[in-house]
Amino acid sequence: MKIGVFDSGAGGLTVAKSLIEQPLSKEIIYYGDTARVPYGTKDSNTIIRYALEAIEFFNNFDIDLLITACNTVSAYALPSMREKAKYPIYGVIEPGIWALNKKLSNKDAKILIIATRATINSARYQDELKELGYKNINAIQTGMLVPIVEEGILEGRVLEEMLHYYFKDIKTPDAIILGCTHFPLISKAIKSYFNNNPILIHSGEAIVEYLHNKNYKSLENTPTINIYASDNVQGLREIANKWL
Amino acid sequence: MKIGVFDSGAGGLTVAKSLIEQPLSKEIIYYGDTARVPYGTKDSNTIIRYALEAIEFFNNFDIDLLITACNTVSAYALPSMREKAKYPIYGVIEPGIWALNKKLSNKDAKILIIATRATINSARYQDELKELGYKNINAIQTGMLVPIVEEGILEGRVLEEMLHYYFKDIKTPDAIILGCTHFPLISKAIKSYFNNNPILIHSGEAIVEYLHNKNYKSLENTPTINIYASDNVQGLREIANKWL
Repeated sequence: MKIGVFDSGAGGLTVAKSLIEQPLSKEIIYYGDTARVPYGTKDSNTIIRYALEAIEFFNNFDIDLLITACNTVSAYALPSMREKAKYPIYGVIEPGIWALNKKLSNKDAKILIIATRATINSARYQDELKELGYKNINAIQTGMLVPIVEEGILEGRVLEEMLHYYFKDIKTPDAIILGCTHFPLISKAIKSYFNNNPILIHSGEAIVEYLHNKNYKSLENTPTINIYASDNVQGLREIANKWL
Repeated sequence: MKIGVFDSGAGGLTVAKSLIEQPLSKEIIYYGDTARVPYGTKDSNTIIRYALEAIEFFNNFDIDLLITACNTVSAYALPSMREKAKYPIYGVIEPGIWALNKKLSNKDAKILIIATRATINSARYQDELKELGYKNINAIQTGMLVPIVEEGILEGRVLEEMLHYYFKDIKTPDAIILGCTHFPLISKAIKSYFNNNPILIHSGEAIVEYLHNKNYKSLENTPTINIYASDNVQGLREIANKWL
């Protein structure tokens, strides 16, 4: 099996990492739209247009399944993408909610969603959680954490100050949905900010578990990964070497 | 006269502001490539391609002069743009250096250049300053200041911490070139970090003075400005209402 992973840039490598650590395929084709990253600050029409161009990119490969690692794309573009593709496409929002719901026993649990502005504005996470009966949902855009992670700041004072900026009025939640692929890289700092109490939901782990549940079988061997980008593919491959 | 102002996004509004406060034209056409912002993290080939597409955009208007407010575009794309255009095109790097050189009397002056990664890597500012005989040049990429300004954080702890992150090992310079259009919005905090000692060079003020020197005449009346964008033009117009 050959899995495509689509992301706006480098962030989706955190999802690719889960697919390498818990293999479902022999091969992964990763495509980051680094020429136009970030998506999370842009309009829904633009996001959908870019996502459909990614489908055209993946038409060059004979993939069996596409995962849109980017939460923003998952929030806006899945229906349009599915119309254009011959293979199944999974986003990360539904798997994230499914994984969270398995872990929580109580509909009164305090859930915090952190994501880009576009993902928060889509209300996809919020609406699906409400449908499941959750009552205490807090959703905030934490977009500046993206460039901080891209800068390689994964701990220390700058990050602490930024977390304080976003979280200072927020009571310790029971669970946090890391609604952007960059955020698993600072999950330790986020968890520690809330005294290590919350459960954290990571898109990569969630999608692997979700696909297992859909009867995609685990493989033994580590898959190969081929990395493509719309800008500076060498830079993306270097990040991949560091992160993966 | 009709002046076009091209920027990767909203940042160039700080340059447009100077052109409104010290009018050189009856009309300003502003175009922000908000669908693909930021440019400062991207490859030179991509930046040039985007800049040439902006020239195509301005072909729809009968402009007499184009200013590329974006330092990153000014660093890489001016020769290619000039080949394609019938009107003069000015960037902001040459004017910035010209304005700085007028203010400094001493070639030993300590000059700090802060800009995006792409602008710093181009070495355009550094090379031109060296040619003028300046010896103490320090150039650092301070890319994270861009999303901070876009978030509207123009003062306070997060910004202070970020400035400390970038400037902690830097001795107070005699002059700072604000080599990115976003930075004039935090010029007060930057100047204050260095005890208000350095002279600051602002692209908008520099280009106006530079064009005066090239015999473009000042007008009395405030020009009209028409704002266009490749994504979310309404959002850009709202920022313009706030900044201008």
